[in-house]
Amino acid sequence: MTNWMEIDTYAKKWIEEAGERLKVSFDEKLNIDTKTNPNDLVTNMDRETEQFFMDKITETFPNHRIFGEEGMGHDVKDLQGIVWIIDPIDGTMNFIHQQRNFAISIGIMEDGKGKIGLVYDVVHDELYHTVRGQGAFMNEKKLPPLKQGRVSETILSLNATWVTENRKIDPSILGPLVRDVRGTRSYGSAALELAFVAAGRLDAYITMRLSPWDFAGGAILIEEVGGEVSDLQGNPLDYLKGGPLFVSKPGLHKEIGENYLKDL
Amino acid sequence: MTNWMEIDTYAKKWIEEAGERLKVSFDEKLNIDTKTNPNDLVTNMDRETEQFFMDKITETFPNHRIFGEEGMGHDVKDLQGIVWIIDPIDGTMNFIHQQRNFAISIGIMEDGKGKIGLVYDVVHDELYHTVRGQGAFMNEKKLPPLKQGRVSETILSLNATWVTENRKIDPSILGPLVRDVRGTRSYGSAALELAFVAAGRLDAYITMRLSPWDFAGGAILIEEVGGEVSDLQGNPLDYLKGGPLFVSKPGLHKEIGENYLKDL
Repeated sequence: MTNWMEIDTYAKKWIEEAGERLKVSFDEKLNIDTKTNPNDLVTNMDRETEQFFMDKITETFPNHRIFGEEGMGHDVKDLQGIVWIIDPIDGTMNFIHQQRNFAISIGIMEDGKGKIGLVYDVVHDELYHTVRGQGAFMNEKKLPPLKQGRVSETILSLNATWVTENRKIDPSILGPLVRDVRGTRSYGSAALELAFVAAGRLDAYITMRLSPWDFAGGAILIEEVGGEVSDLQGNPLDYLKGGPLFVSKPGLHKEIGENYLKDL
Repeated sequence: MTNWMEIDTYAKKWIEEAGERLKVSFDEKLNIDTKTNPNDLVTNMDRETEQFFMDKITETFPNHRIFGEEGMGHDVKDLQGIVWIIDPIDGTMNFIHQQRNFAISIGIMEDGKGKIGLVYDVVHDELYHTVRGQGAFMNEKKLPPLKQGRVSETILSLNATWVTENRKIDPSILGPLVRDVRGTRSYGSAALELAFVAAGRLDAYITMRLSPWDFAGGAILIEEVGGEVSDLQGNPLDYLKGGPLFVSKPGLHKEIGENYLKDL
């Protein structure tokens, strides 16, 4: 029988150690490369942090597999067994430009089901964590179950990209939602935005293009506090391929789905 | 001769005291009212905080005038003499929904010229401050002069509202800028967004509707580190009426003005 408390203890210890290394790196010279396009940034610290997790996990849990943004992990084609889905630095652009507002994100799945979710806001030293079924927490503070949401009182996290010309969605679809909500925000780290929904600081978050490592940890947190997690049509997330994402307080999936997303 | 160091010492002391009261208020029941529309929120703490500044300033500096968001101050129709322009809670919606990401903002003007700028990120305990001509600081850390910016490497703070249907600007004007910058963000507190530009964490910030108390403290900070501050046509800000605002690193006013805003 899998000892989830043991796995959770190690995961928390390692995420804090990795965070400490990232903070120390602020005083060192960063090597910045680009990946798929000039704004898709990666640094030596993304790679070193993923390697750190890879080393620790394979040493302690040799049967677990690792599915990470930087490709240091295994070639994961299915979710059988225990898989750690890791983003060593979610919000690399913020890491570089702001030295804040980035997170380490870890989702641990067993046979495709989310078991542990961790999002660590390194600079603000806020660790959002859950072992599914045992409550979600920010540091020591328990996160209460999310209350019913309403569009008119919603703070929506949505990047301005998705309401201007882009390759993923007709900008006129989400425009009316932006008009009708109480306010919009955008922080530049999906993992943090998901953690903020779990903590009730944002009521909903919509984005058109995420990878599994961007959302795995945060989605597990939101499920634990009773939030709604899906793609824009209400289908389950794809933890191997990623894609669009819509998370919210209870009730908002129905209201937003019926009134704003029905023509998708 | 005005003793600006004395004024600065008091202003910092009071802003920290006021921040402490706001933090304590998180555990108390908040009274929330609306002002001009259902999303224009105000709380008892906005009013109490402005009254706190009013009492302290009039007691210590009886000749100074106060121009504040909640109207507890004087009926200010000109900027003669010394005027404190105060937003007791900038980002009231964040204060209510998030208990973070709001600021106390103070700009102190003499005969219409910015002399002291203060923005206090209460929850993160980060005080951005300047006495004009003596450098700008985040807590004890000096903020270096801003370097030249380029659109292609810019993180732009811009609310999605301004690229969807709204009453202030044709949404097609800023759309191409959103497409061409490196990324966009939106934090929901103008004072913080201005402080982040001063600290180099954002490269530019554009918004269509601010009041003087939203921008006074932050604009003075940005000027001190060599940033550019104006409305969208490049005209000086109106510290009595407010209006649209465009702040940036050096060079971006020219590049954005010529390539994106010329038809305004």
